[in-house]
Amino acid sequence: MNDDQLHAMRHSLAHITAAAVQRLWPTAKFGVGPVVENGFYYDIDLGEINISEANFPKIEKEMRGIINYGDDFERFEMPIDQAIDWAKQNSQPYKEELLNDLKRSGTTVAKDLDVNELGLAATGDSAVENVSFYKNGNFVDLCRGPHVANTKDVGAFKLIRVAGAYWRGKETNPQMQRLYGVAFATQEELDAYLERLEQAKARDHRRLGKELDLYTMSPLVGAGLPLFTPRGTVLRDIFAQYSNQLRQSRGFTKVWTPHITKTDLYETSGHWAKFGDELFLVTSQETDDKMALKPMNCPHHTQIYASRPRSYRDMPVRFLETTTDYRDEKTGELGGLNRVRSLTQDDSHVFCRTDQIESEINNLLASARELYGAIDMPLRVRLSYRDDSDGYLGEMALWQSAQDQLKAAVIANELEYFEQDGEAAFYGPKIDFMATDAIGREHQVATVQLDFVQPGRFGLTYTDSEGNSQTPVMIHCALLGSIERFLSVLIEHTAGWFPFWSAPEQIRILTINDTLCDYVDEIKAILDGIVLMKPVKYNELRYTVDERNESLGKKIREATSWKIPVQLIVGQKDKDAHEVSVRTQKGEEKVSLDNLGDYLTSL
Amino acid sequence: MNDDQLHAMRHSLAHITAAAVQRLWPTAKFGVGPVVENGFYYDIDLGEINISEANFPKIEKEMRGIINYGDDFERFEMPIDQAIDWAKQNSQPYKEELLNDLKRSGTTVAKDLDVNELGLAATGDSAVENVSFYKNGNFVDLCRGPHVANTKDVGAFKLIRVAGAYWRGKETNPQMQRLYGVAFATQEELDAYLERLEQAKARDHRRLGKELDLYTMSPLVGAGLPLFTPRGTVLRDIFAQYSNQLRQSRGFTKVWTPHITKTDLYETSGHWAKFGDELFLVTSQETDDKMALKPMNCPHHTQIYASRPRSYRDMPVRFLETTTDYRDEKTGELGGLNRVRSLTQDDSHVFCRTDQIESEINNLLASARELYGAIDMPLRVRLSYRDDSDGYLGEMALWQSAQDQLKAAVIANELEYFEQDGEAAFYGPKIDFMATDAIGREHQVATVQLDFVQPGRFGLTYTDSEGNSQTPVMIHCALLGSIERFLSVLIEHTAGWFPFWSAPEQIRILTINDTLCDYVDEIKAILDGIVLMKPVKYNELRYTVDERNESLGKKIREATSWKIPVQLIVGQKDKDAHEVSVRTQKGEEKVSLDNLGDYLTSL
Repeated sequence: MNDDQLHAMRHSLAHITAAAVQRLWPTAKFGVGPVVENGFYYDIDLGEINISEANFPKIEKEMRGIINYGDDFERFEMPIDQAIDWAKQNSQPYKEELLNDLKRSGTTVAKDLDVNELGLAATGDSAVENVSFYKNGNFVDLCRGPHVANTKDVGAFKLIRVAGAYWRGKETNPQMQRLYGVAFATQEELDAYLERLEQAKARDHRRLGKELDLYTMSPLVGAGLPLFTPRGTVLRDIFAQYSNQLRQSRGFTKVWTPHITKTDLYETSGHWAKFGDELFLVTSQETDDKMALKPMNCPHHTQIYASRPRSYRDMPVRFLETTTDYRDEKTGELGGLNRVRSLTQDDSHVFCRTDQIESEINNLLASARELYGAIDMPLRVRLSYRDDSDGYLGEMALWQSAQDQLKAAVIANELEYFEQDGEAAFYGPKIDFMATDAIGREHQVATVQLDFVQPGRFGLTYTDSEGNSQTPVMIHCALLGSIERFLSVLIEHTAGWFPFWSAPEQIRILTINDTLCDYVDEIKAILDGIVLMKPVKYNELRYTVDERNESLGKKIREATSWKIPVQLIVGQKDKDAHEVSVRTQKGEEKVSLDNLGDYLTSL
Repeated sequence: MNDDQLHAMRHSLAHITAAAVQRLWPTAKFGVGPVVENGFYYDIDLGEINISEANFPKIEKEMRGIINYGDDFERFEMPIDQAIDWAKQNSQPYKEELLNDLKRSGTTVAKDLDVNELGLAATGDSAVENVSFYKNGNFVDLCRGPHVANTKDVGAFKLIRVAGAYWRGKETNPQMQRLYGVAFATQEELDAYLERLEQAKARDHRRLGKELDLYTMSPLVGAGLPLFTPRGTVLRDIFAQYSNQLRQSRGFTKVWTPHITKTDLYETSGHWAKFGDELFLVTSQETDDKMALKPMNCPHHTQIYASRPRSYRDMPVRFLETTTDYRDEKTGELGGLNRVRSLTQDDSHVFCRTDQIESEINNLLASARELYGAIDMPLRVRLSYRDDSDGYLGEMALWQSAQDQLKAAVIANELEYFEQDGEAAFYGPKIDFMATDAIGREHQVATVQLDFVQPGRFGLTYTDSEGNSQTPVMIHCALLGSIERFLSVLIEHTAGWFPFWSAPEQIRILTINDTLCDYVDEIKAILDGIVLMKPVKYNELRYTVDERNESLGKKIREATSWKIPVQLIVGQKDKDAHEVSVRTQKGEEKVSLDNLGDYLTSL
């Protein structure tokens, strides 16, 4: 089964969904019905009628009826004006609007909606003359295709969700109902996918974030602006600290820059022209300064580089800053930590000579490898190169050398990789890291991006050994990426059972009765003396004591619901034997107090 | 000499300055001439003529002439309309404006300028009838007084500065020249002050900030928004870390909040009504959200408190966050780190029961005492209480109990203190910390502020032991205050010779020749193994090696100009004797390599 076939199956299922809805609710007005990852959707206007999940069996039954009946998908064409008449006669105002737009200018439609995915297309190339339709049974839909030959050929599917969606994504347009389905070539694949979906639901970081008290949202503060509780802040800090330590041990030094700037900075960097409308604007009530919240940190860092003369002996100059950037995301697109308006980057910038690229990339790859190794996420990387087309800035020789150095560093680090020509940014090649989570999903995490352009725009220089002024290369890198997004991945990857060294509450001492205070103090003294040095240095143990007058069973249940990796159970017998019962996810064992330190540091 | 007498001397000198200027430039138009700390100024409009420091001897000579002539200061009164005529006839439009304002409403003037300081006052209490003047020789000035009896009685003075100043502080008004003088009862006191001023100039943190490469400003980023270089960032981080560790060891836990919020948060807290025009406003281009940059963190922290139910057993809840706040200062008021638009606070908030106030204050006082002790700055505190007037919120009994608890904690911490009734904020009493620097200047640093109001506004509660809902008290505290301002004080206090444990570059190894690589490696291995634990825990040594082929003298001069506290000088003889020559501000001594670790950790 190739991707095109699967695409045709899913797209055909979108038509069958619409056909089924039309049989059940003949006044349904249809929007668009594209293929999406793992399935398809169709936008439908049913007026006052609300589809709910309770309706899914009925709709699916109707769909199966259509599938089993076995109609062919028949393609035909008609002139666009005739098509507009067809839409009018069939009371399909959304299709009519699309056709009118298409008539005015094919590009208008193509720009704001993907025509291909819409099932709508002109057959001619430039002037729109004829449009194509597909028919299965009584259901006719404006569509470019392709489709499967017969409704019987659509594979396995399931309707999974219905959600509100504004027509063409605009809040001022009518709200439609978007009916989502998933679909695969075989029932086995569908079942496996649904199983993963169940697993993912159980791991949903929004649910776990609340259950484990990691972060909160406040309507007074606003959407996409999470506030981190003490437990969540431990996670933020420990991973930022780890990411920093990995680079500090390789010669990076921390810098600090403010979160706002005059827009002049972005006018110089070129970001203003490209991303000006994605920024939060800042207004001073005291001055006329035109300002913005920073959406990235490189322009700020260039100003620190530029604050002193630099010589070839000073290179590379390596700046590190974990700081929060702000991006003006639409609130409708914000969910949990995955997509936020306040994103904290563990950002770094190297300013180096061109002959230093490989060793600098090596440093960064080694850091990323170690970090994702520590949380058991296998990595692979994509090397994005330029192609022969125009629009790439910087000399070809520099590109070639840089790309070779990137690849050499990737190979030296024994990273699985693939290469893509034409995927580089216009200002330099890059390496993207993809990490696979515990249920097999791949997430884009760290990035290493070369930059041949920004140093020149800011007039950055260093003096070479001959006394000539040279322009450095810049290397952007975030290992965690956005800490918020990283945490959303980590929470779902671990299902909240964070590695011992990173757990907000690593240890809970559970007492069996209240006559053990002295012995608990003895254990606490041992724990207070332990500072973990791996993988993060200077990591003091975080523990609590549950001395309440409650049953041990209740205490264990609570500690387990908090997903505390180590529970130390203490009773009179343990005291007498000078040991503790250590309960972890692997089971329970007795550990002598003399060995407790070694036991914990080796976890 | 009491303060009133000194005030009269300084105020009389302001008149004498104006008199001298009038003799030199008869067309001079005068604004106001108040007493300020250590002296006085007079605002003068000289049209096209610019006074510079080069003119000071001439003006001072004229002033001495007036003083030696020995005229009495004579007071007289006239009706306000006659005074206005006097101003007109003498071409004194600024005095005329003040008199007209005073005539319209005494309070208008009093509100935007301190009438007392102006040398302008109505003699009547409510309705303005007569105004008073003072005359010495030919010079007449509208003035409430009091003055010294005779121009001979003014003590010792010196003109020190001239600066532009808008009339009545408004940018749309004409710009005048503000002529500053300092004055003391005796020449000895003046000399001592001028000596301190010289010292202060040599310690100016703006100069040292540049020389020691601690921070930079960028016109592209904007005024009041310093960017911290690697060296400056070490200082920021080490003091923030110290301040955090002091509180973490006392039960505080870190939280994290975004730098922006919907203004709804401040409407609820009440800050919007009070401080709305001091905020940077944030505009989303994607949504209609009305947002602002946070100028303080308490409202954000209340939202974390509010995210879970709290019981009396959970109290106190102690949040800690070092985060950057933004205040829309006028750019004209911004200088170096002392006053910035991006101020990073080492902020904390305790939510506690009223019976827990004293022990919580104790924690904070002990932390402040330790911190300022570590940098040799003596502390004293001001206790600000309510008085009997209206406008204080919260029950009287709560205020009384809280004030008693504050005082008890201050006494228990053996802190020098003084009490001021009527100086409390309307929402609770507070403690302000004043630290004295190496040249005797006192700086307001940490604050501990009780808050009986905000918890109620946000509906914060906890359940008491009887199951009833109670409102917690909030305690705001920053130990460093604004880190930027703290650093400006620290740099000037230490003159850039930071305590060993906090120095950005603590140690520089200086080699006498280039045949000592092995020995340098041996020393580096020792330094790499040292982690300072006091006063900040987990403080790895920061050192560099100067192995350049330069003379030792040059290397020492450079290291000293960077104010590196420990220079390790390494020559063949040192290698042979297995020792190093340690050069500090105290002198030079030999230390055996075996003792180097102990030597450094005891610095």
